[in-house]
Amino acid sequence: MLERLTPEQSQRLVSELPGWALTNDGKGMVKQFVFADFKAAFAFMTQVALQAEVMNHHPEWRNVYNRVEIVLTTHDVDGLSTRDRDLADYIEHITR
Amino acid sequence: MLERLTPEQSQRLVSELPGWALTNDGKGMVKQFVFADFKAAFAFMTQVALQAEVMNHHPEWRNVYNRVEIVLTTHDVDGLSTRDRDLADYIEHITR
Repeated sequence: MLERLTPEQSQRLVSELPGWALTNDGKGMVKQFVFADFKAAFAFMTQVALQAEVMNHHPEWRNVYNRVEIVLTTHDVDGLSTRDRDLADYIEHITR
Repeated sequence: MLERLTPEQSQRLVSELPGWALTNDGKGMVKQFVFADFKAAFAFMTQVALQAEVMNHHPEWRNVYNRVEIVLTTHDVDGLSTRDRDLADYIEHITR
């Protein structure tokens, strides 16, 4: 059973991942990514999309040319869960 | 030389393309797309991304699961141009 992270767990999660912050309502985590150009930004998005499909957990995201803003949240728990941590870990892994 | 469409031309452009509307500031055109699932939504985004790269004219867009919101605008003219019309025509072509 998927459980919602507590506010303390949520805060610790984002503090452990560089560049991530809690959304204003505390129900999600957000990070801005900047790439060389659109091609690089969309290549990144494609990697994340494939992994999201494998995990069956999808980002909410916005792209403007070389910039990508990602919000992770788990609607089933109305907050953050380990799924968000796992997807964020993957994203950090491929952008490190 | 790329020229900004007049307000009349901008209005005519969106009136001719189903589902498109001008943004509140009149400098862009926006449409919401809904697909069967994330896979279909991202397949659509990939098609648009490849064409955008060919045209060297890129959308501003947001995706949440099966939904994609696209805003087209031309920063060089601080408004709409024929580039937006051409990319919108392509998008309509592949979603028709």
